[in-house]
Amino acid sequence: MKTLRPAPELDVETWLNTPHPLTLAGLRGKVVLIEAFQMLCPGCVDHGLPQATRVQATFPRADIAVIGLHTVFEHHEAQGSRAAIAAFIHEYRIAFPVGIDRQSELGGPPLTMTAYAMQGTPTLILIDRLGRMRAQHFGHLDDLRLGAEIATLIAESPVATAPAVTAPATGAVDPTGTDCTADGCRLPDTLTAPLATRTSTNA
Amino acid sequence: MKTLRPAPELDVETWLNTPHPLTLAGLRGKVVLIEAFQMLCPGCVDHGLPQATRVQATFPRADIAVIGLHTVFEHHEAQGSRAAIAAFIHEYRIAFPVGIDRQSELGGPPLTMTAYAMQGTPTLILIDRLGRMRAQHFGHLDDLRLGAEIATLIAESPVATAPAVTAPATGAVDPTGTDCTADGCRLPDTLTAPLATRTSTNA
Amino acid sequence: MKTLRPAPELDVETWLNTPHPLTLAGLRGKVVLIEAFQMLCPGCVDHGLPQATRVQATFPRADIAVIGLHTVFEHHEAQGSRAAIAAFIHEYRIAFPVGIDRQSELGGPPLTMTAYAMQGTPTLILIDRLGRMRAQHFGHLDDLRLGAEIATLIAESPVATAPAVTAPATGAVDPTGTDCTADGCRLPDTLTAPLATRTSTNA
Amino acid sequence: MKTLRPAPELDVETWLNTPHPLTLAGLRGKVVLIEAFQMLCPGCVDHGLPQATRVQATFPRADIAVIGLHTVFEHHEAQGSRAAIAAFIHEYRIAFPVGIDRQSELGGPPLTMTAYAMQGTPTLILIDRLGRMRAQHFGHLDDLRLGAEIATLIAESPVATAPAVTAPATGAVDPTGTDCTADGCRLPDTLTAPLATRTSTNA
Repeated sequence: MKTLRPAPELDVETWLNTPHPLTLAGLRGKVVLIEAFQMLCPGCVDHGLPQATRVQATFPRADIAVIGLHTVFEHHEAQGSRAAIAAFIHEYRIAFPVGIDRQSELGGPPLTMTAYAMQGTPTLILIDRLGRMRAQHFGHLDDLRLGAEIATLIAESPVATAPAVTAPATGAVDPTGTDCTADGCRLPDTLTAPLATRTSTNA
Repeated sequence: MKTLRPAPELDVETWLNTPHPLTLAGLRGKVVLIEAFQMLCPGCVDHGLPQATRVQATFPRADIAVIGLHTVFEHHEAQGSRAAIAAFIHEYRIAFPVGIDRQSELGGPPLTMTAYAMQGTPTLILIDRLGRMRAQHFGHLDDLRLGAEIATLIAESPVATAPAVTAPATGAVDPTGTDCTADGCRLPDTLTAPLATRTSTNA
Repeated sequence: MKTLRPAPELDVETWLNTPHPLTLAGLRGKVVLIEAFQMLCPGCVDHGLPQATRVQATFPRADIAVIGLHTVFEHHEAQGSRAAIAAFIHEYRIAFPVGIDRQSELGGPPLTMTAYAMQGTPTLILIDRLGRMRAQHFGHLDDLRLGAEIATLIAESPVATAPAVTAPATGAVDPTGTDCTADGCRLPDTLTAPLATRTSTNA
Repeated sequence: MKTLRPAPELDVETWLNTPHPLTLAGLRGKVVLIEAFQMLCPGCVDHGLPQATRVQATFPRADIAVIGLHTVFEHHEAQGSRAAIAAFIHEYRIAFPVGIDRQSELGGPPLTMTAYAMQGTPTLILIDRLGRMRAQHFGHLDDLRLGAEIATLIAESPVATAPAVTAPATGAVDPTGTDCTADGCRLPDTLTAPLATRTSTNA
C-alpha cells in the first residue's frame, strides 16, 4: 500500500481573518484545503479564490477548514505588504483565514511554497484528517472533481488508514511562460532551480 | 437506521444513443445518474444537460452510468416525437443514452416522471449500486455538491448497506409559476393533482 | 460611390408574436434587424436570439424593428411545424415578431434564406431606413460592433444617401462542417449549390 | 440647443504604457474614452477594464483613444504606488496608456476624479473630437449601448457642432454602500462632501 507523507507545516509571517494563528497540527481531525494564491494573479482572482469560497459555503466547517495562503513570488513591492493583502481581502470579500507565506532570506519563493514544491499560483492542496498530503493541483480544477475529492476525504475516519486520492499534477497553465496566464502564474525557472534542494529540508 | 427504498424501474417508449434498451436492473452494481429533461426547457439546455455531460466525462464509466430521460409534460406536439428529440440530441451533442418517458393513456405527466414524483424539469436523480434512491434534485444543482454526492455513492461497496446522502428538495425554481424559468420547468398544479395517487402505486 | 442594393422582401409562411403580417416595405423609415435562426441551432439559442432581445431592449422601437426569421434548412420534421416554433418562442421568452421562412417546393433552403444567400444560422441582417442592405453577419457578432453599426444606421436621415456600413462576411463558424458548432449551423454544400441560381431571381 | 462643456484637462502624476505624457488637448480630433478605475475594485477588474480593452480592439485608433486613469480614493497604501499599478497592468495585460490621478494635498479624492465629479469606480467617460464632455457612466455599462455612443461620436466631424449623447447617470451600484460591490466602488459620503466645491473650480 502506498505510504502517505505528512503535509509540511505552514510557515506563515502573519494571519488575517482569524483571531489567532493557525497550524496544521491544530487542525488535525479536519480535512484542510489550502488555496495558495497571489493577489495580482488573474487566475487566482477569477477562479481559484471563488472556488475556495464555494467550498467553505458548501461543506460543514466541522469537516473541512479552508485556508488561504498568500505565496508572493513576484511583484513583492506591489503585493508583498500586509496592507496590500488586507485591502484585497476586504474588497474581494474573502471570508476564510489567510496566512502570508514567509519570505526566504535567501531569495526565491516563500518558504511554505517551497516546502510543498508548488509550481505557481493558484495551487489547491488537500490534506486529510490525519494531516497527510492527498492532492495538489496547479491551475484550473473542475468543481465536480474537487467536490468528489473533498467528499472522499471527509468520509474517512480520523483514525483510519486510507488510500490516496488520485491527484495528477494537472494544470492548463502554459508550461513555458514566466508570466501569468488566465489559468495561473507559474514560477519562473530561475526560482524553481534551487527549490528541489530546499524542499528536502522542509518536507 | 433509515431504510432506503428501491428506485422505480424506468418505463421508456424508446431509446436513443444506445444499441439496446436499458433497465435499472441491468445497471445494478453501478451508480446511476438520471437527467430528466425536456428539449424546450431552457434550464435543461443551459445547465442540466451540460452538467450531465460533465459527469460522464469526469467519472469512470465502470462506476457510474449517465442516462437522459425525456419527460415531456407540455408542448407534446413540438417536442413529443422521436424525430424531435433525435434532432435535438444530434445538434446539442448529447453523448449518453436517452430514453423517452412513456406517455400516460390517462393524460398527465409521463409514467416514469410520475413514478418518481418529479416536480418538473430538469430533475437529477442518483441511484446507488444496489438500485436504491439516494438523491433527487429539481432545478439548479452546484457541481461541488454533485461531485461530493457521486463520490460518496461510488465509494460504497455494491453489497454494503449505506446511509442516505443528504438530498433536500432544493431548487430555485419559482414555486408558483406554471411556465419555465431560467432554472427549470415546473409541473403545473393541474398535472400534479393526480400525481400523488399514482405515485403510491409505483413507489 | 458604392451603390446599395435593396434588401429582398421577406417571403414568410406565417407570423407569430404579431397581430398582422410584416413586410420590409411596411417598415420603411425604420432600421430593420433580421435575426435568422433555427430553434435547434445551439449558437442561435446561446447568443443570436439573446442578442436580438438586447437590441430590442436597448434602442427605441421608433428607430429599429427587430424581427426573427425561422429559416429551417435541416431537421424539418423536428422544428418545421408552427407548433414547434410556437412552443420554443413561448419557453425562451422571445418577444419580437417571428416569421417562418417559406419552404421551397424544389427542396433546398427556404426562400428568404436563399434570397439573402445566407450561409447558415444564426445570420444577422441590417437594413437601413430606405430598405437597403447594409450588413449581413453569419455566426457570432460582438455587441460593441453591433451597437456601433445600429447607431450609424439610426443616425441616417430617412431620405439621405449614406455610405455602406463595413460588413465583412465574418463568422467563426467552422467552414468545413455540415453540422452545427457552438457558433452556428452552416448550410451544407448540397444545399448551397443551387443557391446561387435562385439568388439572382430573388435579389 | 444644449451647450456642451469642455472636458476638464487630466491632472496626472505619472504615466505607464506610453512613451510620453498624454493630454486631452493633444488628443483633440479624436474621440477619447477614459476608463477610471482602481486596481482593487472588483467591478473594474471584472468588466470595466476588459470593456475598455474591447473598445481599443474594435475601433480604429485613428478615431478613438482609450486611456486608463488610476483614481485611488481608498487603500492608498495598497494600490497607491507606481510599483503596484505597474505590476497590475503587467499581469492583467492592460495595453492602453494609464495615468495615475494626482492625489490632493488636502485629502479627499484625487484631482481629476474631483474635476469630473465622479461617483466612484469604474467610471467611463466619453469626450468628443472637440474635447467636450459627452457621457459619464458609473458602474456597469452594456456593450451595445457603449458601441452606439462611440459610433455616434466617431461619426461627428472634428469641426461640426453636435447634439449631446444621452448619458443618464446610470449605475447599478448600491447607492448606500461605502464598500465595493460587484458593480463598482462608490465614493463614501465623507469624501464627496467637499467634492462639489472643488468641482466648480476645475470644471
